[in-house]
Amino acid sequence: METRFAPSELAAQVADELRAVVGKDHLCTNADDLDRYSRCTIPWQSLCSAVVFPASSEEVAAVVRIAARHRLPLWPSSTGRNWGYGTTLAVNDGAIVMILTRMNRIIEVNEELAYAVIEPGVTYEQFNHHLRSNGYKLWIDCTDGSGQGSVIGNALERGVGETPYGDHFGCLCGLEVVLPDGRMVHTGGAVRGLKTWHTHKWGVGPYLEGMFTQSNYGIVTRAGVWLMPTPESYNSYVFEIRDQRHLPAVVDAFRRLALSGIVNTKLHMINDFVSMTILTQRISEQVSQDGPLNDAELAALRKKYGISPWNCAGGIYGTRSQVRLQRSLLREALSSYGRLIFVSDRLLPLLEGVIRWSWKKPFFRRLTELAARTSLPVLESAPYVHKILQGIPTEFFVKHAYYRYRRPRPPGEVHPARDRCGLIWFAPILPFTNAHIWPFLDACKARFAAHGFDFYVAMLLMNPRSVICLMAVIYDQEDADETRHSRELYEELLAIMHRSHYQQYRAGLQSWRELFANAPELQRLHDSIKAAIDPANILSPGHYGIAYPRPAGDGVVLSPTVKE
Amino acid sequence: METRFAPSELAAQVADELRAVVGKDHLCTNADDLDRYSRCTIPWQSLCSAVVFPASSEEVAAVVRIAARHRLPLWPSSTGRNWGYGTTLAVNDGAIVMILTRMNRIIEVNEELAYAVIEPGVTYEQFNHHLRSNGYKLWIDCTDGSGQGSVIGNALERGVGETPYGDHFGCLCGLEVVLPDGRMVHTGGAVRGLKTWHTHKWGVGPYLEGMFTQSNYGIVTRAGVWLMPTPESYNSYVFEIRDQRHLPAVVDAFRRLALSGIVNTKLHMINDFVSMTILTQRISEQVSQDGPLNDAELAALRKKYGISPWNCAGGIYGTRSQVRLQRSLLREALSSYGRLIFVSDRLLPLLEGVIRWSWKKPFFRRLTELAARTSLPVLESAPYVHKILQGIPTEFFVKHAYYRYRRPRPPGEVHPARDRCGLIWFAPILPFTNAHIWPFLDACKARFAAHGFDFYVAMLLMNPRSVICLMAVIYDQEDADETRHSRELYEELLAIMHRSHYQQYRAGLQSWRELFANAPELQRLHDSIKAAIDPANILSPGHYGIAYPRPAGDGVVLSPTVKE
Repeated sequence: METRFAPSELAAQVADELRAVVGKDHLCTNADDLDRYSRCTIPWQSLCSAVVFPASSEEVAAVVRIAARHRLPLWPSSTGRNWGYGTTLAVNDGAIVMILTRMNRIIEVNEELAYAVIEPGVTYEQFNHHLRSNGYKLWIDCTDGSGQGSVIGNALERGVGETPYGDHFGCLCGLEVVLPDGRMVHTGGAVRGLKTWHTHKWGVGPYLEGMFTQSNYGIVTRAGVWLMPTPESYNSYVFEIRDQRHLPAVVDAFRRLALSGIVNTKLHMINDFVSMTILTQRISEQVSQDGPLNDAELAALRKKYGISPWNCAGGIYGTRSQVRLQRSLLREALSSYGRLIFVSDRLLPLLEGVIRWSWKKPFFRRLTELAARTSLPVLESAPYVHKILQGIPTEFFVKHAYYRYRRPRPPGEVHPARDRCGLIWFAPILPFTNAHIWPFLDACKARFAAHGFDFYVAMLLMNPRSVICLMAVIYDQEDADETRHSRELYEELLAIMHRSHYQQYRAGLQSWRELFANAPELQRLHDSIKAAIDPANILSPGHYGIAYPRPAGDGVVLSPTVKE
Repeated sequence: METRFAPSELAAQVADELRAVVGKDHLCTNADDLDRYSRCTIPWQSLCSAVVFPASSEEVAAVVRIAARHRLPLWPSSTGRNWGYGTTLAVNDGAIVMILTRMNRIIEVNEELAYAVIEPGVTYEQFNHHLRSNGYKLWIDCTDGSGQGSVIGNALERGVGETPYGDHFGCLCGLEVVLPDGRMVHTGGAVRGLKTWHTHKWGVGPYLEGMFTQSNYGIVTRAGVWLMPTPESYNSYVFEIRDQRHLPAVVDAFRRLALSGIVNTKLHMINDFVSMTILTQRISEQVSQDGPLNDAELAALRKKYGISPWNCAGGIYGTRSQVRLQRSLLREALSSYGRLIFVSDRLLPLLEGVIRWSWKKPFFRRLTELAARTSLPVLESAPYVHKILQGIPTEFFVKHAYYRYRRPRPPGEVHPARDRCGLIWFAPILPFTNAHIWPFLDACKARFAAHGFDFYVAMLLMNPRSVICLMAVIYDQEDADETRHSRELYEELLAIMHRSHYQQYRAGLQSWRELFANAPELQRLHDSIKAAIDPANILSPGHYGIAYPRPAGDGVVLSPTVKE
């Protein structure tokens, strides 16, 4: 286990100033709270000195000015659900963590132009509920992560969802940003009250919104989000590939379908182990309890649950005639390589009824499983897939983080960081061709095995030309050896990636220090912009490798303190 | 007429250094050349001190270092075709203009992933010709401007084309940039030789490519451009609105069609006067020669040419079944409001044959015009529309700039700046709803009339939520009074726009000084980034209002010199 260092204590003077801004109930400085907000699923430790919860952009600006005056690092987070990448953790001990959950207003919904304006504390669940309960004919795009995640937070990390609106940063339009000097800017707009602030992404003059993603140049306190008008018709689909020899043909088919716009969602292609982590836990199965599944165990579990080696999921949206045509185009392109199943809104209640009925008696279940040619638990995931692809979030898929957890999953809220699950995301992005994908996956898979981990890979179609090969290192945080291996594996995966000339689309805390080591000119550019707008390096120092604090301190608590 | 000021002379020492980099044939300093590169279609004057033509990014970097050493303003331009916005003109006299026409290499074409990597001197015509003559199954997106325009230059101005790839900046991916200190960066890539440099737009870390558009932070010397795979089937369409009372219903229909993805091109909606400027010149018609067309004249010309008050054009792409379906969806949504005509690749040669045949005898022509219910010149434009929507550029539509020209259009190359045509683009962008569009157009139209100009407006669908209301002030540069009115009208249009809380999507030279006058925080942010990466303000000082040179000089030739 790690040696835990005592946090730098927050000076009473600073605490008083912060309380004067946010109110006494919205600043935490006691050890329990600090510990809670310093928990993370990755093998990294840093202890914050305070957690502050402002309620408005004015309060955010006031907190920024206090941090600047005292030259204290300030580490903002929207809702703190960035599990597997670092959650709310700062690079070093002593940061003031700022969480924006209280800023959860939905400021505007424009149905005619299909956008909304929201604050960073707005969660997927809240956003979806707001639109549906008020009868708006608009759908959000969520991820298959927690419904308690922040819509804006995910977009600023450039996270990827599901539907045609799944490029979350691509669908942001018009930001309010608090800069490190406490001033506020509205990006893109040369005019106050600009009517196209949330309808035209590029604005006029240099397009700067991208600067505020995966960076530490400012705190986004409000954003426009483009939404999908409820389509006349919608189908989700699942595509099972039972024979892995078809994989190259499937990749070629999907690339062509995506380039021609027939597939316009963030298609997910997951391997069998991804399905396992959702359906079960290691402790529930008769398998080796201190290493990866061997081939026989994997095959047995595949059989038990009726899981194909690979599964894909996506959605189609449009008029009834368009959806009908898309179905036939997908069938034509794919059905020689696997089983393609469409779920419509009409089929859904029927399916849910069958699932409920099947649980009642083993005989019913057997009947259903025979007819569906899969297991009831797999069948049960279909309605969740169908709902996620229309913007209805679920905690169903977050269960994966508990696969190697020593106890059964909690029955209530799923919260891997709180529960100290071990989960590291490794998220390289590759050109979407067979020549790129398979050699890289093979190389990574070998390293997973060498370190005693099961190979978890989900391919997410970022755009028709690029695919994210998202890998999870799922480990037991209470096992020092597994934890050490998780760290070593991650380092080796990074090395393979660099050697193969790829990079991550989204990077975890552990990789920031070396993120631009091979691009010194870009590092210089990032750092010089940082120096211009945050000369004291107050805001999230080191986030995404920008102005990464050097070992030699200069009076500010900025020296790396991670000890092993 | 304007008083023309003598250019600041380039020191012999500087000229020698520049020649040593680019070779003696690629630096112009004689008066004739300087005059030629100081011509523009807008009422603005500034004389450059030299024009330099580097051949590589290394030469660009060397020129930048020379300019920095001597603290001379350097004003880069890709091919110098930015007519109506300022062409190659600097804000002040004395700049070294840099033109990148010699950097016209097509470095890579990747058919599988549908992108190419090109230099800024590559023109639409060259790009299209390269792909077609080498048999690549890829289409470019061009504008309806000159085929001699730069693909990258237009994208960096965030220009808009025609097809689903018509957001030209949106389709740029992976830039090589020379910074004002002469260093080179590859945006987005944390790794040298990054394989996703041209397939994943956002890269890792802050997304900075937008910084290098409509700005003066760096010189783009190479870029990836996403291309459309040749579709199985393609149709262009023209939609004529003969009864203006249908316009609001048409706008609503197109917004819904665009939001649901049925219209995914940069739909153009043009008023009757736009058509006139392409079909004829003022001197060729029996109309008032020193003012706008009156209502009777406009009606007569409309009748003569068979022009509807409004015309729309767009394209549909996909499989044969998709194109068939899109046609029926468009027909269903639009045909109660006007005449919808589709042109397929099969129909095109037939149409061209009929046009050739019709020119042979007045009787043939009469027959064709009766059948087509329009004039032969209008019919003649259909093949150009069809070709532009598949990326084949034409000079056909650039003729508009000559509408008030005193002489007939030149038979050879169309070049409004060389020929001293008077043309100012005013390019506000509005939310795509009736409530925004029509009151604004009415207010602008009244000012056009008050200053003696015909109202030219083309609405270009930037995205489903925003429409560019592109207006041209076409005037006679040889008429001092018209020139003065063109300037006054432009100022008044800007004032109406600001009062209505809109802004331009792309701004001309005359508007830069005040561009961010109403957004001082944004001006500050732009200027502080500029100061960090270009402390001497060498690169295009004042471009898009960034680090706009103040009246009081500081040894550098930066004082405004426009005199009236």
